Amino acid sequence: MSYQLYYWTGLQGRGEFVRLCLEDAGAAYTDVARIEGDDVMTPFLNGEQEGALPFAPPFLKSGRLVIAQVANILQYLGPRHNLVPESESKRIYAHQLELTITDFIVEVHDTHHPVAGGLYYEDQRDEAKRRSKDFRESRIPKYLGYFEKAIERGGGRFPLREHSYVDLSLFQVMAGLEYAFPKALAKQKVPLLRDLARRVAERPNIAAYLASERRVAFNTTGIFRHYPELDG
Amino acid sequence: MSYQLYYWTGLQGRGEFVRLCLEDAGAAYTDVARIEGDDVMTPFLNGEQEGALPFAPPFLKSGRLVIAQVANILQYLGPRHNLVPESESKRIYAHQLELTITDFIVEVHDTHHPVAGGLYYEDQRDEAKRRSKDFRESRIPKYLGYFEKAIERGGGRFPLREHSYVDLSLFQVMAGLEYAFPKALAKQKVPLLRDLARRVAERPNIAAYLASERRVAFNTTGIFRHYPELDG
Repeated sequence: MSYQLYYWTGLQGRGEFVRLCLEDAGAAYTDVARIEGDDVMTPFLNGEQEGALPFAPPFLKSGRLVIAQVANILQYLGPRHNLVPESESKRIYAHQLELTITDFIVEVHDTHHPVAGGLYYEDQRDEAKRRSKDFRESRIPKYLGYFEKAIERGGGRFPLREHSYVDLSLFQVMAGLEYAFPKALAKQKVPLLRDLARRVAERPNIAAYLASERRVAFNTTGIFRHYPELDG
Repeated sequence: MSYQLYYWTGLQGRGEFVRLCLEDAGAAYTDVARIEGDDVMTPFLNGEQEGALPFAPPFLKSGRLVIAQVANILQYLGPRHNLVPESESKRIYAHQLELTITDFIVEVHDTHHPVAGGLYYEDQRDEAKRRSKDFRESRIPKYLGYFEKAIERGGGRFPLREHSYVDLSLFQVMAGLEYAFPKALAKQKVPLLRDLARRVAERPNIAAYLASERRVAFNTTGIFRHYPELDG
């Protein structure tokens, strides 16, 4: 079976967490908007299509199912592609970790858009500098420290004692911070998290994906944006 | 079986979404911190307890399971208490809707804390005014319009054609906005959402809960805060 992924073209954004799963799994999928253009998503967002009503991209079509919200999509894909352990308690924990990553991603976005998503960065730069200072000094250490501890409790290599979609998302978090906040990231003492990210990058399917044209480069239209003035 | 809910005392906050589920279901539960104090949560947050590591309250203990993240908790409780439809597609949609409520709640919080959760409101009031203007003019209409359409597509009474935990959370969203942003809420044309909120409030277990001392009043330490200057 083939999936259809719907997400904005030209950036990694939230769609990237889904792509990393599909690529790691070697699943057949079409990145629909990259072929047909962003307008292809409009009928879904307007409620003119069957199935669940998405609030925003990304959403995934799997047969007749329409699934939106990144963590919801990964929770759907995980068991189908051996990307989450079997036990109920571990699946609940995997989802909890993913939802914490979701929270972090909102905070990453709001470093450059603390006032309004609809305004340009340049129109909220003062607020962005203030928010980013707190993000660097308080939020990055808190979140990365949390994930570091989760990996430690999972035996030192994986938060869930085996590879899962959570690892793929943590890789993306580390890659995004490396691009957007290189100075702040360099100060973090998170050896297990760095090791996990390195191992994910070396997985054959992920390594092939990262080297392909399908991996759009980080840029300042995505969630992770490099504005030197925000990195202290 | 009895559940143990862990959440900060003195405010509704994110814990309230879980309480509404437990109360509507008539489930036996202990609101642990209200009896033993907030410090009872520290060993969990420090990783000194068995089970999943929570990033933050609320978390629920169910037997040996520790479950954090509101939407994750509701997804766990839903099937156990007839608070979500049977079909996989509806369960996925229910969770998607709940995750969209989660996103909205972050935005509600950030109206009064657009710079840093660790700073006082008074130290970010200018930014809060700016963010709240966009929230009132752009975000409230967008989110409520989305939920209104979801209810309409669900047959006009429920987003999922039958009562679910999503309805309970939508009630809480409407109650919170009524407290925090009464002027902005009055401008919204969302008759189906208002009707849903009214019906939830009249459910016997919910009506009894709202009239009880267990329902802490909205106040300016919670997520929904009434600061007149932010309501335009």
